[in-house]
Amino acid sequence: MQLSLSTWTDIEQYLKTSDAIIIPIGSMEQHGPTGLIGTDAICPEVIAKRVGDEHGVLIGPTFNVGCAQHHLGFPGTMTLRPSTMIAAIADWSLSLAKHGFKKLYWFNGHGGNTATIQAAFAEVYAQRSFEPSPARQPALRMTSKNWWELPSVMAKCKELHPSGDGMHATASEVAVTYAAYPDQVRNQTLEPKIAPIGSFTDAEHYRANFPDGRIGSDPTQATIEAGNTIIDVTAQALWADFQKFAQS
Amino acid sequence: MQLSLSTWTDIEQYLKTSDAIIIPIGSMEQHGPTGLIGTDAICPEVIAKRVGDEHGVLIGPTFNVGCAQHHLGFPGTMTLRPSTMIAAIADWSLSLAKHGFKKLYWFNGHGGNTATIQAAFAEVYAQRSFEPSPARQPALRMTSKNWWELPSVMAKCKELHPSGDGMHATASEVAVTYAAYPDQVRNQTLEPKIAPIGSFTDAEHYRANFPDGRIGSDPTQATIEAGNTIIDVTAQALWADFQKFAQS
Amino acid sequence: MQLSLSTWTDIEQYLKTSDAIIIPIGSMEQHGPTGLIGTDAICPEVIAKRVGDEHGVLIGPTFNVGCAQHHLGFPGTMTLRPSTMIAAIADWSLSLAKHGFKKLYWFNGHGGNTATIQAAFAEVYAQRSFEPSPARQPALRMTSKNWWELPSVMAKCKELHPSGDGMHATASEVAVTYAAYPDQVRNQTLEPKIAPIGSFTDAEHYRANFPDGRIGSDPTQATIEAGNTIIDVTAQALWADFQKFAQS
Amino acid sequence: MQLSLSTWTDIEQYLKTSDAIIIPIGSMEQHGPTGLIGTDAICPEVIAKRVGDEHGVLIGPTFNVGCAQHHLGFPGTMTLRPSTMIAAIADWSLSLAKHGFKKLYWFNGHGGNTATIQAAFAEVYAQRSFEPSPARQPALRMTSKNWWELPSVMAKCKELHPSGDGMHATASEVAVTYAAYPDQVRNQTLEPKIAPIGSFTDAEHYRANFPDGRIGSDPTQATIEAGNTIIDVTAQALWADFQKFAQS
Amino acid sequence: MQLSLSTWTDIEQYLKTSDAIIIPIGSMEQHGPTGLIGTDAICPEVIAKRVGDEHGVLIGPTFNVGCAQHHLGFPGTMTLRPSTMIAAIADWSLSLAKHGFKKLYWFNGHGGNTATIQAAFAEVYAQRSFEPSPARQPALRMTSKNWWELPSVMAKCKELHPSGDGMHATASEVAVTYAAYPDQVRNQTLEPKIAPIGSFTDAEHYRANFPDGRIGSDPTQATIEAGNTIIDVTAQALWADFQKFAQS
Amino acid sequence: MQLSLSTWTDIEQYLKTSDAIIIPIGSMEQHGPTGLIGTDAICPEVIAKRVGDEHGVLIGPTFNVGCAQHHLGFPGTMTLRPSTMIAAIADWSLSLAKHGFKKLYWFNGHGGNTATIQAAFAEVYAQRSFEPSPARQPALRMTSKNWWELPSVMAKCKELHPSGDGMHATASEVAVTYAAYPDQVRNQTLEPKIAPIGSFTDAEHYRANFPDGRIGSDPTQATIEAGNTIIDVTAQALWADFQKFAQS
Ligand code: NI
Ligand code: NI
Ligand code: NI
Ligand code: NI
Ligand code: NI
Ligand code: NI
Repeated sequence: MQLSLSTWTDIEQYLKTSDAIIIPIGSMEQHGPTGLIGTDAICPEVIAKRVGDEHGVLIGPTFNVGCAQHHLGFPGTMTLRPSTMIAAIADWSLSLAKHGFKKLYWFNGHGGNTATIQAAFAEVYAQRSFEPSPARQPALRMTSKNWWELPSVMAKCKELHPSGDGMHATASEVAVTYAAYPDQVRNQTLEPKIAPIGSFTDAEHYRANFPDGRIGSDPTQATIEAGNTIIDVTAQALWADFQKFAQS
Repeated sequence: MQLSLSTWTDIEQYLKTSDAIIIPIGSMEQHGPTGLIGTDAICPEVIAKRVGDEHGVLIGPTFNVGCAQHHLGFPGTMTLRPSTMIAAIADWSLSLAKHGFKKLYWFNGHGGNTATIQAAFAEVYAQRSFEPSPARQPALRMTSKNWWELPSVMAKCKELHPSGDGMHATASEVAVTYAAYPDQVRNQTLEPKIAPIGSFTDAEHYRANFPDGRIGSDPTQATIEAGNTIIDVTAQALWADFQKFAQS
Repeated sequence: MQLSLSTWTDIEQYLKTSDAIIIPIGSMEQHGPTGLIGTDAICPEVIAKRVGDEHGVLIGPTFNVGCAQHHLGFPGTMTLRPSTMIAAIADWSLSLAKHGFKKLYWFNGHGGNTATIQAAFAEVYAQRSFEPSPARQPALRMTSKNWWELPSVMAKCKELHPSGDGMHATASEVAVTYAAYPDQVRNQTLEPKIAPIGSFTDAEHYRANFPDGRIGSDPTQATIEAGNTIIDVTAQALWADFQKFAQS
Repeated sequence: MQLSLSTWTDIEQYLKTSDAIIIPIGSMEQHGPTGLIGTDAICPEVIAKRVGDEHGVLIGPTFNVGCAQHHLGFPGTMTLRPSTMIAAIADWSLSLAKHGFKKLYWFNGHGGNTATIQAAFAEVYAQRSFEPSPARQPALRMTSKNWWELPSVMAKCKELHPSGDGMHATASEVAVTYAAYPDQVRNQTLEPKIAPIGSFTDAEHYRANFPDGRIGSDPTQATIEAGNTIIDVTAQALWADFQKFAQS
Repeated sequence: MQLSLSTWTDIEQYLKTSDAIIIPIGSMEQHGPTGLIGTDAICPEVIAKRVGDEHGVLIGPTFNVGCAQHHLGFPGTMTLRPSTMIAAIADWSLSLAKHGFKKLYWFNGHGGNTATIQAAFAEVYAQRSFEPSPARQPALRMTSKNWWELPSVMAKCKELHPSGDGMHATASEVAVTYAAYPDQVRNQTLEPKIAPIGSFTDAEHYRANFPDGRIGSDPTQATIEAGNTIIDVTAQALWADFQKFAQS
Repeated sequence: MQLSLSTWTDIEQYLKTSDAIIIPIGSMEQHGPTGLIGTDAICPEVIAKRVGDEHGVLIGPTFNVGCAQHHLGFPGTMTLRPSTMIAAIADWSLSLAKHGFKKLYWFNGHGGNTATIQAAFAEVYAQRSFEPSPARQPALRMTSKNWWELPSVMAKCKELHPSGDGMHATASEVAVTYAAYPDQVRNQTLEPKIAPIGSFTDAEHYRANFPDGRIGSDPTQATIEAGNTIIDVTAQALWADFQKFAQS
């Protein structure tokens, strides 16, 4: 069940049985010469929709542009400043709270978003914490999970790509996007086969250190099959984790 | 060609032949008991992707949550405050400008976004206008078009729905979403058949005046066929209009 | 009746019979070599004060600097960024709401303000729409009207200046300022007689395309007499339109 | 010479001989039962225009709504939040700097504005101070003067109103507005004759302590004659002070 | 009694007998070749802690970086923009208000902070003034005092340093820091002995006019003994002034 | 070497040999009935100063109020909203960058700060990433480390407190503060001996779940001796880690 494909009366019904929602959140940023710019939005979106379809959980629209300033040295990357992202997450959250949603599960596809998502949660909570008691703003509970950190997911990724899964433009995330968009599979040799690793600051620094955009990965080993496996495993893990959250 | 489904090297290539991009921009808001909450995002997205597929134009990610505070009285509606939306549009625009895009065509699906989009353009332009000469920030040109206002589109909508096309949750926009998502067609009688018209201020006021969310429309006459016709007509109009913009 | 020239006890009295106010809003921007920088503030101010004098309607202070970033290439132009203007309009509005004003009629003299004014309204409404029910913030109703778009005004302007009324630094608006400040009439030949038309983005772009600041106009035909006629016609139209608003 | 009543070519000429401007800045706030809400805007405006007329100094538009949150308990008062006022003063200042103005003399009519004006100056200066050397932003010099603190002005006010000139809604400022708007003279007995004095925090606190709005004043002694005297004296003092500033 | 060195149960107890707190507020800015960068934070902190120790008054954490953009031309200076400082002071104030503190005494060590502190107070008060009655936010009372302006303090400073106490990097404030940190006494000849005086705008301007950072002062005469005397006198004055405030 | 206790000429000298600085960053929040409100600021401050004293590293002022909205249910807690904290960290960072510092090591004492610190870094980096090449803003490198996560520190803490070290108001952090302020040791029995564990959202939720403020800890076992041991171990680890950073 997708919010975007529901009517308001559908949501009114849904709220009679659940006050929880999953919101995919990603990024629009380079993922090396063979990875799609939308990778970090596509992964959580595809997995969340699978859970939405199979279990009737409501899936919100995808928060598709995130914190990617460090990738701005590569054409196509788009970013929000963290302060903008905090304001936007707050507006999304307060909109849902207005309708009676009390548990927001942000399902994240981009490590670079993690800090700002947590800062946004604190910004939203702070509004209520500053209020005199009793607060008028309804209590919200928010959580954020990176898809690759759900139980058993990383193990599966490492099993599928024992070497060169990497940190950015990973074989696993690229595989998920190939499974989601089979006509977008890229066949290209990358040099070096496994990209260098390291840290980074701003866009200039990132590009100087990671000239083709990858970090520690060999995404050429990504396959549609592996992608489908990862989607299956992660969807199961998401469903289990979300249930716990929704019932907490 | 979609930014989300491109690699950064694809975009690097694209920029050698074009510095223009189409960005669908919509809203996540109630569209009556039979219209989808994502209607205003779906319509420009579907039409833009058609043009992107047929003509190789680059289509950006969809800016999917817009200015919909007046619909917050209906479950599922999500909104940005205008100040947040201005910040986000600015960040998207400056990201694209960084790569050399000089012409941003925002293809809009929600009348309520129009003013804030224009304000955002002025915010972006103002940064450069305030700069001492010569400005360091590259010159940008931005335009925003509502899909139903492209040449010949409204005429076709009125031809298809001579009465009760309406102002919100229109038969035409609902038809487009049914064409895009045929499994989401809703069959339901609405009372009154054609919704009332009028103006509105905030969410409470809107709901009091338009109890089921529609304004002036009878979306029950929406069909997949009509939706496909509208998509065809609008895609042609968009392509023509975009070409003029890209060459200006 | 002007807010600036009233005491607080006057306003206390006024609020017993009306909760509506007219607020002139303009801009401080170049209007070609013969038009005054204050034109867009002067026009709505003069017309509104006429209505205030004749009918006892309360006229607020003039919001005199607006959105004019595109005119910054010409000496004397002043602008707010849209984000600043939204904050300021919100503060003005909430100040008036605090006292019991419920209907704010912003009488606008500058087309470039329109979008940001509407965005500001949505910003103010959104505060209330986000509030849990029942809202504590009082309900406000706001409207914005461009003086030249009131019924019969444009017809009169075209009648007075059948050719070359134009889009910026129009003969009509310059005439109004000459009527208001007869000692400021400028007699100067402009070349070309009717300025070019077109669109614009930032200040550099505007000045490159409209070298003396005018768009499509020949303001040399402006006369005090025409200005007085326009003031008369517009004041009548404003009074009629405001009454409808105040009683809605 | 007033910016509002000048053309851009006038300002272009002016800038060849001077890079300094006077900007009246006031407030829209209650001034007791006999004082005008616009008092603090009217006083600096009238005096500055006198200097502008007599000496050809350029007078900017009046910044008419300032920091008056403490007066919001009285109908008609309007305020900006300090953060909004800082943003607006910055935009005004940077607009003028764009054209080559280097010396901005803010001529203030409201004690409650003083702190925020100084904070706004620091905000503007900070932008340049943070810049790497050499700064691209042109150097600005800004000063703010309260009209009653110019040399010899307070002495004249005390001479005219030896007792009960007061701190808010003073006899002197009310006299200036009566001189400026002779048809607005109010004749009313106030009780007590001289209002109480004290400090205040927010609007509720202010109204509780100063029930009719005045602080320490007996404005019933205000006369048109005294107002004209004060305007004369202050205009001379302003001209002298401005000259020093413009030549510094 | 220091907030930083108290437990929450200590504060719970304190609030049963007092709703007032002293918060030292300073700056991190150059104080000439012999003055410490922390001078303006150290002075109010040391004096406030003395009062806290002697009288059981609660002393908050030191707001240690303030408004010092004009000193950015000298290594080590740190500043907040005024808009940031307003937001921070508001957050500190609303945190304390949440617990029941009603009287906040900001004890200031830097003249350059004064305006922004006052603006911050107005920002906080404005929130409550804008609220519909009855306000939900508790009423707060805030004051700010510069330590050298407390009764009898300046007289003592002038007595100790009859010539060359100065305006920035004063002999008196340097003496206080030497008393507080005896191992930080600097012995160095300064040229000229007494620094020049004047006004300033941004960092470049300041450094050009005051090449070693001092204004009007000869801090080489600062001694530990004088510092201790000033601390004694000021602590007594602070205690007296705070008592009046706490009981108001 | 402390910035606060240095002169600007000292810093000028320091910058000739190093462009790196350590900035302690903490929080002002309840730490249970026996822990000090300043604990999270005291711990990094004490350890950093140790390193500053021993190795001549420059230690910045302590950023003493952080992200603690969830503790606002306990008297004495102070917080910044994340958006304020981002602005403040940006201002601190850009101040230091102005002088030539290129490596900022934020030494953190509060887990709740981590996300917002990272978001602030991205905010600062984004400014430069958005700039056209070549960027004018100097390149900065920033890192943030939690003191308890430095190599070997947690092992030592667990060795000292094998059970009940906990997550908030830990025995280890309380021990550090007792070592730093021996006169602040609290002897009090806590019930239950080891506090419950769990997650939290806003202040109301936190207090409901952790009634005395502790999470998972038994801080009654904290001793001055253990504190000194932890300070020793952590100072060594900090020095090693900082050296790597400063040379990177
Ligand atoms: Ni990724
Ligand atoms: Ni729609
Ligand atoms: Ni105009
Ligand atoms: Ni006044
Ligand atoms: Ni000082
Ligand atoms: Ni802690």
